[in-house]
Amino acid sequence: MDYLFIIGITAAVLTTVAFLPQVFKVYQTKHTKDISLVMYIIFIFGLILWTVYGVLLNSLPVILANSFTLILCFYIIFLKIKYG
Amino acid sequence: MDYLFIIGITAAVLTTVAFLPQVFKVYQTKHTKDISLVMYIIFIFGLILWTVYGVLLNSLPVILANSFTLILCFYIIFLKIKYG
Repeated sequence: MDYLFIIGITAAVLTTVAFLPQVFKVYQTKHTKDISLVMYIIFIFGLILWTVYGVLLNSLPVILANSFTLILCFYIIFLKIKYG
Repeated sequence: MDYLFIIGITAAVLTTVAFLPQVFKVYQTKHTKDISLVMYIIFIFGLILWTVYGVLLNSLPVILANSFTLILCFYIIFLKIKYG
């Protein structure tokens, strides 16, 4: 494995798992008032395009990282709509 | 320009500008309680690695998109620390 691959994978893992603490926080507090719904809507459209990009490039890391982030962001939007 | 490039650039623009509504929201309300500090700290480490990845790949779109997102996320962390 070359170092470029390792840096890319580490970057992808970090920008994906970063959303887990936000999910846990909202899940525990049931408060989402300060979170921007518009941010997550735009971000999700971006993630969908990144996933398409990964499919077209046949890049499994890009597909997996963005798909997992998509699930987390959809869940944050779901909680945001639920708790307002 | 091929369609792969257009999809990649559009994805990068969306996942970057997505943070603007969150910046505006915090700037206006001065409330950050529901936002996870840990999320932004992990995300910033990921963005730094993505920027390094872009430099090593000599990819200006990757460098620009991640640098701009870095600035926005640093500003959100600054406001989060300021307003708690």
